[in-house]
Amino acid sequence: MTAPAAATTPSPLTDLSRLSINTATTRQQWGLEQAVAGYAAGGVPGIAVWRDQVADCGLDRAARLIRDAGFTVTGLCRGGMFPAPTEAGRRAAIDDNRRAIEEAVALGARCLVIVSGGLADGSRDLAGARAMVRDGLAAILPEARAAGLPIAIEPLHPMYAADRCCINTLGQALDLCDALGPGVGVAIDVYHVWWDPALEAQIARAGGADGSGAGRILAFHICDWLVPTTDLLLDRGMMGDGVIDIPRIRGWVEAAGYDGLCEVEIFSAANWWQRDPEEVVSVCAERFLEVV
Amino acid sequence: MTAPAAATTPSPLTDLSRLSINTATTRQQWGLEQAVAGYAAGGVPGIAVWRDQVADCGLDRAARLIRDAGFTVTGLCRGGMFPAPTEAGRRAAIDDNRRAIEEAVALGARCLVIVSGGLADGSRDLAGARAMVRDGLAAILPEARAAGLPIAIEPLHPMYAADRCCINTLGQALDLCDALGPGVGVAIDVYHVWWDPALEAQIARAGGADGSGAGRILAFHICDWLVPTTDLLLDRGMMGDGVIDIPRIRGWVEAAGYDGLCEVEIFSAANWWQRDPEEVVSVCAERFLEVV
Repeated sequence: MTAPAAATTPSPLTDLSRLSINTATTRQQWGLEQAVAGYAAGGVPGIAVWRDQVADCGLDRAARLIRDAGFTVTGLCRGGMFPAPTEAGRRAAIDDNRRAIEEAVALGARCLVIVSGGLADGSRDLAGARAMVRDGLAAILPEARAAGLPIAIEPLHPMYAADRCCINTLGQALDLCDALGPGVGVAIDVYHVWWDPALEAQIARAGGADGSGAGRILAFHICDWLVPTTDLLLDRGMMGDGVIDIPRIRGWVEAAGYDGLCEVEIFSAANWWQRDPEEVVSVCAERFLEVV
Repeated sequence: MTAPAAATTPSPLTDLSRLSINTATTRQQWGLEQAVAGYAAGGVPGIAVWRDQVADCGLDRAARLIRDAGFTVTGLCRGGMFPAPTEAGRRAAIDDNRRAIEEAVALGARCLVIVSGGLADGSRDLAGARAMVRDGLAAILPEARAAGLPIAIEPLHPMYAADRCCINTLGQALDLCDALGPGVGVAIDVYHVWWDPALEAQIARAGGADGSGAGRILAFHICDWLVPTTDLLLDRGMMGDGVIDIPRIRGWVEAAGYDGLCEVEIFSAANWWQRDPEEVVSVCAERFLEVV
């Protein structure tokens, strides 16, 4: 047996070549065009974008701006939101996800990030919502496969199970991957999974340790869990300001074979969204080198 | 294969004989003596109490009041809070838990509810915190066994992993029970576990379906998850006002062999703590018969 400690010591981050920033991190200050310019000016080589900002900018123009700046697009946020009380509602969600696939391809995104949706409106049927998610993903997978676009299921923290995402652990997301077959993997965000006692084992499984073959880790997202956390949605912390052992989790992810970018995604209504966005970018870069 | 649906249909609740109220539900309005009188007046046969309220009342007097009212004491809240940065701190926590065991015995409580504690102050070592919890429980178990007092590990929602409780799923709590041996079981609170994709299987395991022998479900707590939830700690809902399918979970718990009381525990700073406590008790009773 090889020493497990070695496998979980991550490689040092000595430059910004693996840094990506999700535009949610500066969404109150900058639109997409400003974010592209601001991240590039900060020496950040990766970006993840949101559909509403892309729509505001125009898809073709957004794709050109991002391409001209030379970014790696670590993800398009977001597809998903499948559960709905009526068949028409579920069909509309599937159609919207098909458009998201087209946009992700146009943007050259590495993956379409899926936030599954929570309970259907007015329902308490969590198992039913999870079945709707599985069916919705199965419906869009042929288009995604044809386009060569990986679908990244992002398990969200259990506190979002009701209203945002009923896929709440990495193990559950991987079970879904197993059921759906090729073309689908996971986005691992430390904020959502850091608490999970099964995390190390499930990250290894995502990397193919279960014999399933190719690695299924399509994205790695970072931020921090603040103590206290004052809002369920908009109080995420900058790396280093909270309690998550980010290097440990990054070590597990890299031991599982992931060598892509680390994407900073911080929703912070009272703090980082109130600051000069150039400062936000420079702090992201500093902390990336210091504490990630 | 027998039809699984039958096993998960709970028996109807046609009277209040299985209702308990945790005094946290009225803690802003009533001290222990008032709660004892108020719950008894409302026809509620069970009560769960907190150590601070017991201390305010005096242990002997509290025990007499509760005994004279004829209550079943579904739990004493709470032991636990084991992780600490120093050995002296961890020893102090263990000593405090030993006092909690004595108090639980004096009160005739069915169990001492354990909220494990989160990360040690200043630490990001979640695995280390979990080891401190295991060690703390192992240290107090001889006294609990000698006193015949069951120790009930309560897994808390993952959103409390950092600052309150690093035992965050029922499966993890049962793994801990397996490691610790006799005298320890679980308290299952729908608020903390409703989101868990493994819940049905783990409840069955808690009931002894894994061949471990006697059932380990020592308490069953109810309230509801509100959408939106505006505070991580103090915005729990009254049964029926949220999205938890309580009868389904009660069905699983009963199929696993639990036939004890259902304990209402609602922390609600902005709503139920602002109301006439007699109204709170009567709504608990109504909802118990209607939606639990």
